[in-house]
Amino acid sequence: MTAELRPTRRMLMGPGPSDVHDRVLRALSAPVLGHLDPEFLALMDGIQQMLRGLFKTENRMTMPMSGTGSAGMETCFVNLLEPGDAAVIGVNGVFGGRMAEVSERCGATVTKVEAPWGQIVPEDAMIETIRRVKPKVVGLVHAETSTGAWQPVEAIAAAAREVDALLILDCVTSLGGCPVEIDAWGVDAAYSGTQKCLSCPPGLAPVTLGDRAMAAVAARKHKVQSWYLDLSLLANYWGGERAYHHTAPISMNYGLYEALRMVFEEGIEARHARHRLHHEALYAGLQQIGIGLANQEGHRLPMLNPVEVPAGIDEASVRKELLERHNIEVGAGLGPLKGKVWRVGIMGASCSANHVALFLSALENALRSRGAKVGAGAAAAAMQHLEAAETAAR
Amino acid sequence: MTAELRPTRRMLMGPGPSDVHDRVLRALSAPVLGHLDPEFLALMDGIQQMLRGLFKTENRMTMPMSGTGSAGMETCFVNLLEPGDAAVIGVNGVFGGRMAEVSERCGATVTKVEAPWGQIVPEDAMIETIRRVKPKVVGLVHAETSTGAWQPVEAIAAAAREVDALLILDCVTSLGGCPVEIDAWGVDAAYSGTQKCLSCPPGLAPVTLGDRAMAAVAARKHKVQSWYLDLSLLANYWGGERAYHHTAPISMNYGLYEALRMVFEEGIEARHARHRLHHEALYAGLQQIGIGLANQEGHRLPMLNPVEVPAGIDEASVRKELLERHNIEVGAGLGPLKGKVWRVGIMGASCSANHVALFLSALENALRSRGAKVGAGAAAAAMQHLEAAETAAR
Repeated sequence: MTAELRPTRRMLMGPGPSDVHDRVLRALSAPVLGHLDPEFLALMDGIQQMLRGLFKTENRMTMPMSGTGSAGMETCFVNLLEPGDAAVIGVNGVFGGRMAEVSERCGATVTKVEAPWGQIVPEDAMIETIRRVKPKVVGLVHAETSTGAWQPVEAIAAAAREVDALLILDCVTSLGGCPVEIDAWGVDAAYSGTQKCLSCPPGLAPVTLGDRAMAAVAARKHKVQSWYLDLSLLANYWGGERAYHHTAPISMNYGLYEALRMVFEEGIEARHARHRLHHEALYAGLQQIGIGLANQEGHRLPMLNPVEVPAGIDEASVRKELLERHNIEVGAGLGPLKGKVWRVGIMGASCSANHVALFLSALENALRSRGAKVGAGAAAAAMQHLEAAETAAR
Repeated sequence: MTAELRPTRRMLMGPGPSDVHDRVLRALSAPVLGHLDPEFLALMDGIQQMLRGLFKTENRMTMPMSGTGSAGMETCFVNLLEPGDAAVIGVNGVFGGRMAEVSERCGATVTKVEAPWGQIVPEDAMIETIRRVKPKVVGLVHAETSTGAWQPVEAIAAAAREVDALLILDCVTSLGGCPVEIDAWGVDAAYSGTQKCLSCPPGLAPVTLGDRAMAAVAARKHKVQSWYLDLSLLANYWGGERAYHHTAPISMNYGLYEALRMVFEEGIEARHARHRLHHEALYAGLQQIGIGLANQEGHRLPMLNPVEVPAGIDEASVRKELLERHNIEVGAGLGPLKGKVWRVGIMGASCSANHVALFLSALENALRSRGAKVGAGAAAAAMQHLEAAETAAR
């Protein structure tokens, strides 16, 4: 017989999932309703309303897809691209690369605008390429989870609009942690995941599509290659008619509902400020140790920090020690950053003074015990930063 | 502010989701682990091992896809079909029709073998068509959730093997409720859902693919059109390497793990016998009322019963009364059975003497109060059937 389920309570400080508040965990265990039950339909309305508030959009087509963030990505691309269409994709990490891969599987011709991992995609190169290629779709990653690059969106969105291209924005890691302004920026389609700054378990992918995007879906020559992700079919369930498409993941929607309620209780702007502040505190602590961040200054995400591994340190052994000794999970570097950084997430419920202080203490100790030259008092430096900010705010 | 989450505890006796045991609900609220945490990897091993036991297969590629049952269907078809391939699909309800639709979206040429809703797909017609068309893929629904037809598989599987076709079997409603013998029958690929006879909330789709199917995936000329569902990529996460593909829905996997443990605690054969017995009891009660089932005699699924609506009765008003007054959910008929049947599920935790007795009492009462001529004592008849079976077993 298989063993009893007894997962350890970790502090999830990697690239996601993040810690999940007890209120959200409890919501998951509420009695299951049918997917056509009037009570569930009311809950769907609430989720859609809160997602619109969070994405800062009036888009009617705003809902959680029944899959993880990557299913949200695929939803946007398979619905908007047809064989032979052109796409321009900014690639500066794993998720831009995945956008290009998904676009090619849609039969699109992809032009990549590349940048070194950790840097943003240069706006001028992106805009120049959009003007030259005049693609149907432009793909851009707002918050590159693999590197911590924080991409400016507005100028690129304007360029896309100029040539009548549809902008798809990856907001998996940004939504709920830093400003996302779908309507104000002129973003046509965006997707996110639940397991980052919303602090809900993985399993749903909020998406939003504007009128221009939905007009493109309606004008398709071929059916969407994915039946499961076909928005013209899903519109009948999440839209007015509530016609059965597939059985929605009821319990996951409970979790998202409760997680979104907590976002609005805190306030969207206050939540963004919390992420910014704890990022600064983390950075102050890292400076005290004497190590830096591997992403571009001026474009550093608050919620995902690529912490540089000091020379001569085996990064995997440090991650193992943090996990086994302190129950702290951080992420490994990917691609060119493999072995060079730890990806430290402070997302949603994992964005607190205690998370930052414990991580810094544990890291400082692990590095010192491996003979690295480290400054003392990283956690104290972070705490002082937080207190100073508190005092200044009074 | 949106309202507090307070779902009513229903008795879920529709086509799924079914009732979820408190142990499974509690598992959902366990602390979330990272998708690469050694503890989670061990849990994945346990899930795979139990799924192999349940599907009765040695298939290495056996795992839950991160979507609902329809994503499981799409996984099998998009991985095995390429543009220009031929597929033969048995269509006798919604889900055979969906198989044909998904196959066409893969660019396949589809030959349908149709049968009236409620009937099985005739084996001879299916075998004759397979021999004539010699398709790459044969699609068959083991348990048609829209009608309650229970399809024999073995002869059709043998015919598929004869012409070197790959048989994909829809086991969404059958798995855990009646025998499923993937290896003994020679099924190449099968998929299920968690929210039927496994009594886990919806959100995952167990799939299993044999060596012939995986060889076809490896021999593809084109990449799989869905990145999210690409088994050659997923094999690296659920196979040996545990390489990151997408963030698995951690909490849903907790639920599935616990639900599968409960299946094996009960015993697979005992679980099948329980479904059969309560189906017979339900049928005895319906006969007492004076109504029958709309599916083909000799091929009636135990877990999904298309209960005939007596002439002159508005089926929707009865469903509404069952839900609002008794908290019992049953399903409506679909397609040609719309308005003509209620779909009554006795699946997993919803398959008990109390479920059957309460449903029968409530139905009998609802029909009588609408002036229908009904026999009295439906619940008693069902109970007597159960007691007689108990006595006979001693």
